[in-house]
Amino acid sequence: MSSHFADRLCDAVKAKKTSLIVGLDPVYSRLPAAIKTHRDMNDEFDVDAAVDAIFDFCTQTMRIIAPMVPAVKINIAFFEKYLWEGVETYYALISEADDLGLEVIGDVKRGDIGHTAEIYASAHLQNPELSGLEDTLAPDAITINGYAGEDAIRPFANMATAQGKGVFVLVRTSNPSAAEIQDSPDADGRPMYERLAKLVGRIADEPAQIGKKGYSNVGMVVGGTAPETTAALRRDYDKLWFLVPGYGSQGASAVDCVRFCKPDGTGALINASRSIIYAYEKPKYKQQFGEDWKRCVEQAVIDAKVDLATAMQSKL
Amino acid sequence: MSSHFADRLCDAVKAKKTSLIVGLDPVYSRLPAAIKTHRDMNDEFDVDAAVDAIFDFCTQTMRIIAPMVPAVKINIAFFEKYLWEGVETYYALISEADDLGLEVIGDVKRGDIGHTAEIYASAHLQNPELSGLEDTLAPDAITINGYAGEDAIRPFANMATAQGKGVFVLVRTSNPSAAEIQDSPDADGRPMYERLAKLVGRIADEPAQIGKKGYSNVGMVVGGTAPETTAALRRDYDKLWFLVPGYGSQGASAVDCVRFCKPDGTGALINASRSIIYAYEKPKYKQQFGEDWKRCVEQAVIDAKVDLATAMQSKL
Repeated sequence: MSSHFADRLCDAVKAKKTSLIVGLDPVYSRLPAAIKTHRDMNDEFDVDAAVDAIFDFCTQTMRIIAPMVPAVKINIAFFEKYLWEGVETYYALISEADDLGLEVIGDVKRGDIGHTAEIYASAHLQNPELSGLEDTLAPDAITINGYAGEDAIRPFANMATAQGKGVFVLVRTSNPSAAEIQDSPDADGRPMYERLAKLVGRIADEPAQIGKKGYSNVGMVVGGTAPETTAALRRDYDKLWFLVPGYGSQGASAVDCVRFCKPDGTGALINASRSIIYAYEKPKYKQQFGEDWKRCVEQAVIDAKVDLATAMQSKL
Repeated sequence: MSSHFADRLCDAVKAKKTSLIVGLDPVYSRLPAAIKTHRDMNDEFDVDAAVDAIFDFCTQTMRIIAPMVPAVKINIAFFEKYLWEGVETYYALISEADDLGLEVIGDVKRGDIGHTAEIYASAHLQNPELSGLEDTLAPDAITINGYAGEDAIRPFANMATAQGKGVFVLVRTSNPSAAEIQDSPDADGRPMYERLAKLVGRIADEPAQIGKKGYSNVGMVVGGTAPETTAALRRDYDKLWFLVPGYGSQGASAVDCVRFCKPDGTGALINASRSIIYAYEKPKYKQQFGEDWKRCVEQAVIDAKVDLATAMQSKL
C-alpha cells in the first residue's frame, strides 16, 4: 500500500469501484437480536458485556463490507459513551479494519489550538510509540474542527504528512441547523463556511500535503444535504478529497452526493451509517432475509452502491 | 452543595475569593524531577509509568490548589495521548478533584450533530449508570464546539440541566489565528463569533437553564486575549458564566481578564494552565524555592490571585 493517504484512497476507491463508505455508529439497544440473545437482559448497563457486543457487531459488519467498500468511518462518540473501555474497543476495531484491508477514518472531530492541537494530532494520528501499546494503530485519517483557524488545522496537517495519514476538516455539516453559523453571509453576501474552505484549501494545496496522484492528505467534510454548494467546491478545490455525510438516513440523495466525485470516481467518500448498519430494522430487508441481519447489511451495501453508480452514470 | 452548576460556581468563587482556576495540561517530559526520578529513563514511552507519573503529579498539584481556587480544568487531549489508559486516568483525576471539593471542567471541546451530540452529552456529562463503572464521575461541566449550530449545543444544554452540570461553548478562542474565522465580518461589519454568541445566549437564557442565583448552566469560552470584545459580551450576556483562557502563558493580562467579572467577582472563571503547573521551571520561583516544586506551584497560585485581585480592585 502507498504511504500517502490520498494515494491509498484512490487505489481503494478504484479497487472497490465505489465512493461509498460505511459509518459505524453502534448503539447497544439497536444491535441485532442474534448479537444480544446469548447475553443477559441487563447487558446494556454492564460495560464489559456492552462493549463486547458492540465489538462483535462491528467486527462482523466490517467482514461483510470489507470486500465491497474502500473505507469505514468509526464515530468515537459511540465508544466514549463506555469511557476508557469504549476507547479501547475503538482502537481494537481500527486494528480489525486494518487487517481487513479497509482504510479507517476516525470520526473524532477534535479541535484545539496550538500546542494542544499538536497533542491531539499525536494522540489520534500517530501510531503509538508506547511500550504496552505498540500493536495499536492510529486510524488512517481523522475528522477535525477548524473553527479556531489555522492554528487548529496546521498541526494535524503536519502530523498527517509525517505519518502517511489524512485529515478532513469540517466545513459544511449536514444537520438542519448547520446554516445558522456556517451560512451566515459576509460583507459580500458569501457564506462564512467559504472562508473556512479557503483556509483549508490553502493548507491542503501546499506541496508537502500532495501525493503522487495529485490529491492532498487534507480534505473537507461537506454534507451531501447542501447540494447547491457542491459544484463550486468541487471546482475550486481540485486536489481535495471530500468526506460527504448525509447520504441515507440524513436525506441526501445519490445525485446530490456524486456531485463531489470526479468523472473517474475519485475525490469523494460518500458515507452512509445507520441506513447500512441497521438495515435489518427495515421492513424491505426484513421481509426478504428474516432474522439474517448480515444478509440485510450486505444487501443494503449492494443497493447503495448501485444507487450511487446509477447516479454517477447519469451525471457523465 | 447546590445541584445547579452555576449556583455551585457562585458559592465556590465566593468561598475561594477568586475567579482563578487552574488548567491541567500535563506533559510527561516537563514533570518535576521529583516525580520522575524514582522511575526509569524510558518511562515517557512506557504507558503505565507515564500515566502513573501524570496522575501522581496532577493529584499532588490539585491538593495544593484545592484550598485556593474554585475549580480545575482538565484538558483531555493530554490524556488521550495515552489512549484508553490516559482516558482512565482522566476519570480518576475527576474523582480526586471531586473528593478535594473542586469543581471540575472537562476541557473536551466535543462537537457533533443531533443524535451523535446526544451520545457525546451522555458520554461526558452523565455520571455512568454502567455496572463496573458506577464509582466513576463525569465532570461538573465540559467545553463544547458550536460550529454546527443549535443541533450541536441543545443536547448538551439539556443534559446539563438533567444532571446538574454545565457546558461552555467555544465562542472566541485565545489563539493567534482565531480571528481568521471567528472575526470575519458579516454584512454589517460585525464579527461572526457574535452570531454564535447570540445563539448560545438564546439557549442559555431559557428558564430551564437558570439557577437560583440567576446564572445559566450554559456559558461561553472567550479568550482574555481579545479584550476589546469583552465589555460588550459581559453587558449583553448578563446571565452567563465566561470561561476565560489565555491568562498567564498565552499573554492576556489580569486587567484584560477581570473585565469578564461582575463587581461581586462572579461571572467568570479565569484559567491559567502552564504558568501555574510548570511554575518550578521559572527562574523567579526556582531561585526562591529550589527543587521544592510544590512550593513553586503554591506561590504561583498566590501571585496570580493577588494579580487578579489587584486588577479587580482598580476596576471597581
